[in-house]
Amino acid sequence: MSKPATIDVLGVGNAIVDVLAEAGDAFLTAEGIAKGGMTLIDTDRAHALYSRMPPGIEMSGGSAANTMAGIASLGGSCAYIGKVADDQLGEVFAHDIRAIGVGFDTRPLAGGEPTARCLILITPDAQRSMNTFLGASSYLSADDIDADLIRSAHITYLEGYLFDRPEAKEAFFSAAKIAHDAGRKVALTLSDTFCVARHHAEFTALINHVDILFANESEAAALTGETAFDAAVSALSAKCPIVCVTHGAEGSVIASVGRTHKIAAASVAHVVDTTGAGDLYAAGVLYGITAGLDLSAAGRIGSVAAAEAISHVGPRPQRSLRALIG
Amino acid sequence: MSKPATIDVLGVGNAIVDVLAEAGDAFLTAEGIAKGGMTLIDTDRAHALYSRMPPGIEMSGGSAANTMAGIASLGGSCAYIGKVADDQLGEVFAHDIRAIGVGFDTRPLAGGEPTARCLILITPDAQRSMNTFLGASSYLSADDIDADLIRSAHITYLEGYLFDRPEAKEAFFSAAKIAHDAGRKVALTLSDTFCVARHHAEFTALINHVDILFANESEAAALTGETAFDAAVSALSAKCPIVCVTHGAEGSVIASVGRTHKIAAASVAHVVDTTGAGDLYAAGVLYGITAGLDLSAAGRIGSVAAAEAISHVGPRPQRSLRALIG
Repeated sequence: MSKPATIDVLGVGNAIVDVLAEAGDAFLTAEGIAKGGMTLIDTDRAHALYSRMPPGIEMSGGSAANTMAGIASLGGSCAYIGKVADDQLGEVFAHDIRAIGVGFDTRPLAGGEPTARCLILITPDAQRSMNTFLGASSYLSADDIDADLIRSAHITYLEGYLFDRPEAKEAFFSAAKIAHDAGRKVALTLSDTFCVARHHAEFTALINHVDILFANESEAAALTGETAFDAAVSALSAKCPIVCVTHGAEGSVIASVGRTHKIAAASVAHVVDTTGAGDLYAAGVLYGITAGLDLSAAGRIGSVAAAEAISHVGPRPQRSLRALIG
Repeated sequence: MSKPATIDVLGVGNAIVDVLAEAGDAFLTAEGIAKGGMTLIDTDRAHALYSRMPPGIEMSGGSAANTMAGIASLGGSCAYIGKVADDQLGEVFAHDIRAIGVGFDTRPLAGGEPTARCLILITPDAQRSMNTFLGASSYLSADDIDADLIRSAHITYLEGYLFDRPEAKEAFFSAAKIAHDAGRKVALTLSDTFCVARHHAEFTALINHVDILFANESEAAALTGETAFDAAVSALSAKCPIVCVTHGAEGSVIASVGRTHKIAAASVAHVVDTTGAGDLYAAGVLYGITAGLDLSAAGRIGSVAAAEAISHVGPRPQRSLRALIG
């Protein structure tokens, strides 16, 4: 696709293909997998775990990429920067994100590690437990950050997962600096409680420079040390202009300049797989903000998008979100 | 898995990973795709079609492999022979079939064509239109036919699709000869109307040597020249001891030694995707026969297995068929 003069949102993240399989709690226990979290795994562990996993289905994933898929489904314009390898799963990732109208031109990694895979076990309670082999995705570097593309985006959205490798972290800071220097907004998702714990000091310093922050209740608690939900939201809100904290089935809260908006969750007949819930919530909120809606209205779109994501297996919308919001 | 002394069924076929995407009728028209059929495509066409397809989901497929997945889900013992490449999609195929307990030890093709892909467009009427890039799968050769494994199987099940490449056709005849020489049964599915048309003379000669034949109504008509359903069944039945012909929503007919068993289709609340319906029908019938059931009972298991397959996207069972048949 040709780049529009300006786009709504640019996502930067780990480009990952998900391998989704249903498994019982006993499988998680036997494999020592923490339910609901994201664990980084190396090549050997990836092979060992995969060899014991039930049959899977492969779908494009990656947190920020899922968010861009959501924004595109809502009718927003967006692009994505992330690193795949020049292999079959890399082709799958590139095809799928382009097919939904998201600009994607990051040069694939040649002759090195394979495209990232996330082995996701879905338990009968619809929780997803993720085991990520970062592969090529962690080779995203500052060289991959297209400065013109960042300057063209109203919001550059970064995932905390990028902090897990030095090269990608450098790309993260590079993207944030270019966006701010161009007078654009920077959004960040904390991504994962364990990810916050691994990079606590840096995240604490960083959020002073973030315009729109996304977290779930556990991540907010991990970063602030405040275990009470409202206290954690207040602590984040003191540092960051717009703070969006999800609260599972209770919905979410968006706090901004002293005001707190409580957003109800959208109803779901049957929760099948929570993979992508947070990613799609962020898609709805970012779309709403760039569409000029107030924060409550943006939050409600986030709830609708998250509800669609959890009603089926897989992290990206399977129905038009634009049609769902009417 | 270690090979059991004897197994119920051995499948031999094209080892394929499916790429499933939803598309409208206009997309089929624009791409010149025949609805409901299987079209062979080359590398250039595969790239061109894929580049225009909506985002997809990757799942292991392949007709005979799906049938083995169905038999395993019913509790039968089985193995599979088919050729993947030593690439990522080949790993996906091997993992998925082994993970459900099907023995699979065919040596992957090294340094040649990639693992076969089938680009499947699912239209709103739940029909699937398949575009197959055979890649490594067509390099299945007589060398890949494990004679001991064939001798260990009560039934060797072959897919007509193998006729589409000379090497694979040779493997087909090799497998059939070994099975018959060992006093075992040979089953065949005609696979596809266009496939029957491409190899009409050979199929006509071949079915005299087949013990159990599977076809749908179109394939039966294409092979026999009899457009009336009953006449086509009779014509096939004159040459082959057990003939199973599916008839869409009307169910199927199994004809054997002068007796005809009409089998009702099992009810499905909502038909989502007919990919795999015939493959899973064959799984149920073959399982029933190897379990010593009469042909009507075997046919009913075929109906239940097919109904499960068409109630979701993807060709293989997503619930335990054993549990479904009680």
